Amino acid sequence: MKKFINGVDTVLAESLDGFAAAHSDILTLGGGHKFIRRKVLKPGKVALISGGGSGHEPLHGGFVGQGMLDAACPGQVFTSPTPDQMMEAATEVNTGAGCLFIVKNYEGDVMNFDMAAEMSEGVMHVVTNDDVAVEDSLYTTGRRGVAGTLVVEKIVGAAAEEGRSLKELKELGDTVNRATRSMGVALTSCTVPAAGKPTFEIGDGEMEFGVGIHGEPGRRRDRLKSADAIAEEICAAIVGDLGSAARGNALLFVNGFGGTPSMELYLMYNSARKLLEKQGVTVVRSLVGSYVTSLDMAGCSITLTMLDDEAARLWDAPVHTPALRWGI
Amino acid sequence: MKKFINGVDTVLAESLDGFAAAHSDILTLGGGHKFIRRKVLKPGKVALISGGGSGHEPLHGGFVGQGMLDAACPGQVFTSPTPDQMMEAATEVNTGAGCLFIVKNYEGDVMNFDMAAEMSEGVMHVVTNDDVAVEDSLYTTGRRGVAGTLVVEKIVGAAAEEGRSLKELKELGDTVNRATRSMGVALTSCTVPAAGKPTFEIGDGEMEFGVGIHGEPGRRRDRLKSADAIAEEICAAIVGDLGSAARGNALLFVNGFGGTPSMELYLMYNSARKLLEKQGVTVVRSLVGSYVTSLDMAGCSITLTMLDDEAARLWDAPVHTPALRWGI
Repeated sequence: MKKFINGVDTVLAESLDGFAAAHSDILTLGGGHKFIRRKVLKPGKVALISGGGSGHEPLHGGFVGQGMLDAACPGQVFTSPTPDQMMEAATEVNTGAGCLFIVKNYEGDVMNFDMAAEMSEGVMHVVTNDDVAVEDSLYTTGRRGVAGTLVVEKIVGAAAEEGRSLKELKELGDTVNRATRSMGVALTSCTVPAAGKPTFEIGDGEMEFGVGIHGEPGRRRDRLKSADAIAEEICAAIVGDLGSAARGNALLFVNGFGGTPSMELYLMYNSARKLLEKQGVTVVRSLVGSYVTSLDMAGCSITLTMLDDEAARLWDAPVHTPALRWGI
Repeated sequence: MKKFINGVDTVLAESLDGFAAAHSDILTLGGGHKFIRRKVLKPGKVALISGGGSGHEPLHGGFVGQGMLDAACPGQVFTSPTPDQMMEAATEVNTGAGCLFIVKNYEGDVMNFDMAAEMSEGVMHVVTNDDVAVEDSLYTTGRRGVAGTLVVEKIVGAAAEEGRSLKELKELGDTVNRATRSMGVALTSCTVPAAGKPTFEIGDGEMEFGVGIHGEPGRRRDRLKSADAIAEEICAAIVGDLGSAARGNALLFVNGFGGTPSMELYLMYNSARKLLEKQGVTVVRSLVGSYVTSLDMAGCSITLTMLDDEAARLWDAPVHTPALRWGI
């Protein structure tokens, strides 16, 4: 294992300390590294809280700030945060208008956020499940929630700033999730620090098609194909699943898993965009970069969110977080 | 070689096409992919042009836009752009106030930018050489220009927007370069698509200390050490080289080389910041991310720029580029 670390037990805490120090204008850490919260809250606004296992940075801590999340709860690497983390975060950032939990569909996350919701007041939640690769998976009943979660957090975050109610935000989150599909492919495994070796073995000429963001299996192991062929199969799966909804304006988001450089991500974006536009999708917004990662895994995912004018307007709204920033 | 590509000959063109499509609100491509330029120029402003071999994305194309560069000339991977690229870019973006070339100190880049400057009118240049690792190197007489180039482009870019003259900007660029030091370390090699195999061999427990951004040798091959030990040696080299200038306010920039995830970069930032603050440096600005890369190389560099109030103000000024954006 080749990583910049001091010891496997302190990776997360040291990284969070660095993160909080680098972005002290935006956020602060809760005691015991239990959560990351906005430095300045907006009274009367519904609080948005997300979280999940670490190793997917900048998701979710990198999206704490004006226009997105009020707090994020980081679990250990690829491990769900505990209910007390969400409860403490909710207590800290709920200014009276309630809390919306945004949860990726993984059994541990859903269970622990549910438990925290039951023990808190004024909480609703949105569960994202945008990954079309597999119906049930190693850690999931139903589809996995992956990179599309960023899109839900951005659009619902903008709406929350406008003062919408908890119920309205819950409905908007579900609507954005339903308009969003993703699928990914891995070229290499990630290596969890505490494990010290790659999560899975993969041959020199192979890819894991439909991989999950913890390196868990996807649809199949296949020989590595051209960027165009990979993009074509992913886009076909996404468009096929959206069905008649895959018409008109969309956000195209090509996401790196951590070990894939920008040059390749833009090349995949180029392939995907051309394919989608031939099929009646008009790409009106774009995001290309490593935002929902799997530690050092080489690979990428493609996410498509169909956008009505209102969703596009909320996507464009000002945001000021460590990882997404514009208009401020 | 495991990459998202269609063919080694088309990697750069396809990636640039995707890049231009994703950021069509900010920039356009010159014919034959010779340069990337701002979509809207600001008449009367000195034009800032940079460039160099590709494979370091987002440097330089990702810094084209309001508040930074007017154009960037991408060479083939790790290959200098040709003088006609700079000349065509200069012709396109010079609105009459002259051009400043910002050039990383590599022999090919310096020679080709020089040639273009001789054949153009109203051109001056700043050559960056922030890398303290080695005095002369495989491709360099004198020190290499590396991640600190971003800092020069940002600060000089902001000053150019304010209407400063070519001569003033040249002086500012030299001043920022003199206040900037960097050094990097690689854990793995990069793989150039056309070569199809890693640029250098490196053992499981080894690191290349002081590596260049093309994977060229640094100070020495060493066994992989802890993040704290690596940060300590890099910071000592930087602070030692700055000498008495290493006092007071600074920008600390921890840069990933492409294959290293955000979690490790923030951990390195945490180590470096604590060390620097013990030595009388006050970190007042921070940047953490993969901005000056070496394709898929795992590794990182640390850059320190000493900031006076004016430089800090220019760093904070609005910027709207694909890779750096705030205030707009």
